[in-house]
Amino acid sequence: MIYFVGAGPGDPELLTRKAWRLLGQAQIVLYDALTDINPLRDQFTQVRWISVGKRGGQVSVDQRLIGRILVNTAARYSCVVRLKGGDPSIFGRLAEEMDVCRSHGIAFEVVPGVTAASAASADLQTSLTLRGVSRNVLFVTPAVGAGQQADDGWLNASLVAETVVFYMAGARVKEIASKLIAAGKSAEMPVCLIENASQSGVREKFHLNDLVKMNLPRFAGPVILMMGAAFSSALENELTAKKVLAL
Amino acid sequence: MIYFVGAGPGDPELLTRKAWRLLGQAQIVLYDALTDINPLRDQFTQVRWISVGKRGGQVSVDQRLIGRILVNTAARYSCVVRLKGGDPSIFGRLAEEMDVCRSHGIAFEVVPGVTAASAASADLQTSLTLRGVSRNVLFVTPAVGAGQQADDGWLNASLVAETVVFYMAGARVKEIASKLIAAGKSAEMPVCLIENASQSGVREKFHLNDLVKMNLPRFAGPVILMMGAAFSSALENELTAKKVLAL
Repeated sequence: MIYFVGAGPGDPELLTRKAWRLLGQAQIVLYDALTDINPLRDQFTQVRWISVGKRGGQVSVDQRLIGRILVNTAARYSCVVRLKGGDPSIFGRLAEEMDVCRSHGIAFEVVPGVTAASAASADLQTSLTLRGVSRNVLFVTPAVGAGQQADDGWLNASLVAETVVFYMAGARVKEIASKLIAAGKSAEMPVCLIENASQSGVREKFHLNDLVKMNLPRFAGPVILMMGAAFSSALENELTAKKVLAL
Repeated sequence: MIYFVGAGPGDPELLTRKAWRLLGQAQIVLYDALTDINPLRDQFTQVRWISVGKRGGQVSVDQRLIGRILVNTAARYSCVVRLKGGDPSIFGRLAEEMDVCRSHGIAFEVVPGVTAASAASADLQTSLTLRGVSRNVLFVTPAVGAGQQADDGWLNASLVAETVVFYMAGARVKEIASKLIAAGKSAEMPVCLIENASQSGVREKFHLNDLVKMNLPRFAGPVILMMGAAFSSALENELTAKKVLAL
């Protein structure tokens, strides 16, 4: 049995109780590049921890190789946890790994997790939707697979949705802002940059054209960019979240 | 101190560890109409449980009244949990309640939760995003506030996004399907209907035009409708999730 388990945004307290129980039962955990695996390693010492980590811009394990690891591991262990950052269904490449299980007759279950957008919004004490202002929220990524050409496939839906959250946006923040403005998005649209949602990192609020003009901070952790009129009041309110680091 | 806490989609094991800890510390919990509060009531007997439940189509507490309750409760208790279904930032009317806290100088923290779309996708063993097929996912609701006229504000973004999840869709499934097809969405687009995500309820997969033609089941719990090419393989794969009830 393989459990595809969402690890949440980073804070170990934001794992679900089910994720925690399964980590206690697992013999082996195959984990992605999470922000900090050490608290989990320290807690679950019975587990064999194997990194199959992918992370943008760094050396990563090929997806086919992950498939072979899943098959081999399922043959040797009765309780395997495949731990994925955030929620497995959102930019987690879950479908490819479930297909491997199906084609090899491996039973599996998916355990959802807290996605980074929810955590980022909580950190900033904002809401992704706002009655009368935003009745929809889009999660989108400009990231493409290894060997694929970067494209503007993220642009169209981003122009129409009322709230937009760009995942894995760190390397392309300025390009995203420029292209949105060129395509007609208001230069005054509120945006928020969040690094390491639910943990320590950059939390900054701007208008869209600020992203084009200013020097951006260097990011060490995963970055999401949020945009929409729902964040207007966030720009006015003083940040009261505890874990904010000034730039 | 008021904690705005996401209760997740329904299964008590899908609360985060942090939500669980705070429920253990709380003196009073103000909760929305959740699918089943009883397991939590039984667990946390030290807590005063107060329903301020809103739920589509049923008698509900006015949002201004909820604000007054928040203020009065914060004055009397040092640890208040405001428990919201799913994730507080997604269709949770969180902003209004945070504004009440700000204007009354009440300290608060937001604790994110697992949103229903993640749970529904896990139940169906699908993924909301799929490399090469869907690089974005939109959460949208056709629901409007009490006293407001229902409108088609949900339509435009729903036509452009690659995966769409309609929250609080139960009463308007046929209308949504008809209007999407009339506006040019393929009648063959895969759709999934999920009632009580993460718990027992309807789980059905169709094509969009089936929703227009067929008799729909009666729903007792909250319903989400998911649409997109990312669910094509879900339509082909046999359901292996444990908790499926046949119609």
